Amino acid sequence: MRKLEDIGERKAIELILEMLDKMPRMPIPFGDDVSAYPLDRERLLILKTDMLVGKTDVPKGMSLWQAARKAVVMNISDFAAKGVKPLVMLVSLGMPRNTKEKEVKEISDGLNAGAREYGAFIIGGDTNEASDLIISLSVFGLAKKNDVILRSGAKPKDTVAVTGTFGKTSAGLKILLENCKAPAEIYYSILEAVYMPKARLKEGLALSASKAVTSAIDSSDGLAWSLYELSKASNVGFFLENVPLANEATKFAEINRLDPLDLALYGGEEYELVLTINPSLWDKAEKAIKSVGGNLIKIGRTTTEKQIVLEADGKRRIIEPRGWEHFRKR
Amino acid sequence: MRKLEDIGERKAIELILEMLDKMPRMPIPFGDDVSAYPLDRERLLILKTDMLVGKTDVPKGMSLWQAARKAVVMNISDFAAKGVKPLVMLVSLGMPRNTKEKEVKEISDGLNAGAREYGAFIIGGDTNEASDLIISLSVFGLAKKNDVILRSGAKPKDTVAVTGTFGKTSAGLKILLENCKAPAEIYYSILEAVYMPKARLKEGLALSASKAVTSAIDSSDGLAWSLYELSKASNVGFFLENVPLANEATKFAEINRLDPLDLALYGGEEYELVLTINPSLWDKAEKAIKSVGGNLIKIGRTTTEKQIVLEADGKRRIIEPRGWEHFRKR
Repeated sequence: MRKLEDIGERKAIELILEMLDKMPRMPIPFGDDVSAYPLDRERLLILKTDMLVGKTDVPKGMSLWQAARKAVVMNISDFAAKGVKPLVMLVSLGMPRNTKEKEVKEISDGLNAGAREYGAFIIGGDTNEASDLIISLSVFGLAKKNDVILRSGAKPKDTVAVTGTFGKTSAGLKILLENCKAPAEIYYSILEAVYMPKARLKEGLALSASKAVTSAIDSSDGLAWSLYELSKASNVGFFLENVPLANEATKFAEINRLDPLDLALYGGEEYELVLTINPSLWDKAEKAIKSVGGNLIKIGRTTTEKQIVLEADGKRRIIEPRGWEHFRKR
Repeated sequence: MRKLEDIGERKAIELILEMLDKMPRMPIPFGDDVSAYPLDRERLLILKTDMLVGKTDVPKGMSLWQAARKAVVMNISDFAAKGVKPLVMLVSLGMPRNTKEKEVKEISDGLNAGAREYGAFIIGGDTNEASDLIISLSVFGLAKKNDVILRSGAKPKDTVAVTGTFGKTSAGLKILLENCKAPAEIYYSILEAVYMPKARLKEGLALSASKAVTSAIDSSDGLAWSLYELSKASNVGFFLENVPLANEATKFAEINRLDPLDLALYGGEEYELVLTINPSLWDKAEKAIKSVGGNLIKIGRTTTEKQIVLEADGKRRIIEPRGWEHFRKR
């Protein structure tokens, strides 16, 4: 009998979905980044849950305050990708019995700081005894039906864009988990990316208002995987000419003799938005994101072939759909 | 430095609340059984999260299907107490890496069965790697502001009532955890109470519609503790003349030389509703609950003294606020 470590998270989710009765007329299908319930003709209730588990999601050196804040960022990032403002959150906390009072306060303060950073409030929750730190969050928002950016709206010849550079988080995890080295001038900036990730909420909200975005996802499972998911949901391919690397990631790759593109493509826990944009509305999208102090970096275009191709420095490369996945033996 | 095992769950929640910024004008205060967000002048979005942890919440002999269903019942029961219909749920699942495919299906089927039993749908969620089974659920519903039954509305001289008898779950846990004995004619009925708890949803909805209920809570932390919580929130005391015991619990207590009242008062994981009712509307409440096939059992009245007193069989006894609490050394 196969186990989760054999089949991986994505297959596990398929198994689960097979067992569930589907609500009739779901406004947002299973498999997108948030769920929805229709409040009336116009408005949707938007819902999302995600869990942080101490053992797998809290790297060495991350404080409990940072772990709690990161649990919030993970959830908010999906709201950002859908262009929906998070309003309130519930927290279900699992903690070991020997957790200290000071640690409980630190976790709570980190949760509150994360929520407030993005304008949301924590309005309820519960606590439980567990053998590891478990922070399960649920986030709620309201949106007009047509303002939610799905994974499935990309059309061929759309412009593909991202909201920032890639590779720092991968580099950071390689420092923490694989003992890679980095000199002081890039070390702290790289670890900052791991310990204090940011969700691109104001960017996502501005882009949703611009009506220029046809599909979106965040890059939390890695850029390659995000593109693969958009490709699957929208039935398009990608032709990329540019993968924007963080300077620190380029330097880190050089020093540790790694392929910098691998760092950028197959990372994870990086919370940039990956978007397809109606090319005739590009200026509008760019103006919207600049108005909130963000960046929109063009990386390619969508195609009708269901492949992800990167052509850079005169070389052509097919990007495989690999990315972070729970349960898999590593 | 004190730890959770020293301070217990209730003090832990106080610590957490101290660290949180409060949303202005919360429609339902922290500490009640559900949270709320105002949708418009009339309607509230009702939210609830609760977590089942394998190690502490799944007794010996309970199947994964039953554990998953129980996670749903735990959450629905709070909606029942507030008189709010649950509409949709999200599931955040933590599972060990060696969980079998069959087990994943069993958990999913149990979750779905629980949701459908109470008319709700599971519309989203996520999966995570954890060292123990973690089922964190969030439930959502909609309610008119004045239809939600809070803990805080009881007035002196209200009638106190419950929706069923007590003691079977305590007896069951004593069989499973403390090797107490029970003959076959009561054994299966007692274990059924542990493995297949029911939430009193139709009763709660009918009572909310009757407008006769002034405050309510479920008895999931034990009847004594539920009364204590209502007492605290409503600033009343209780004078009880009757604690309805399940026949099986009476027999079980006799055989094992236990105080049957202890079984009824200090159990937990029993999901009856504990209610205070405007005495002039008692008939209306009774009619409402009978119309859905439920029972309303009068157990006493509220008082102005902040004490819980039981007078039965010519004996007077003060009921201490003890009940199930996470983290505490036992």
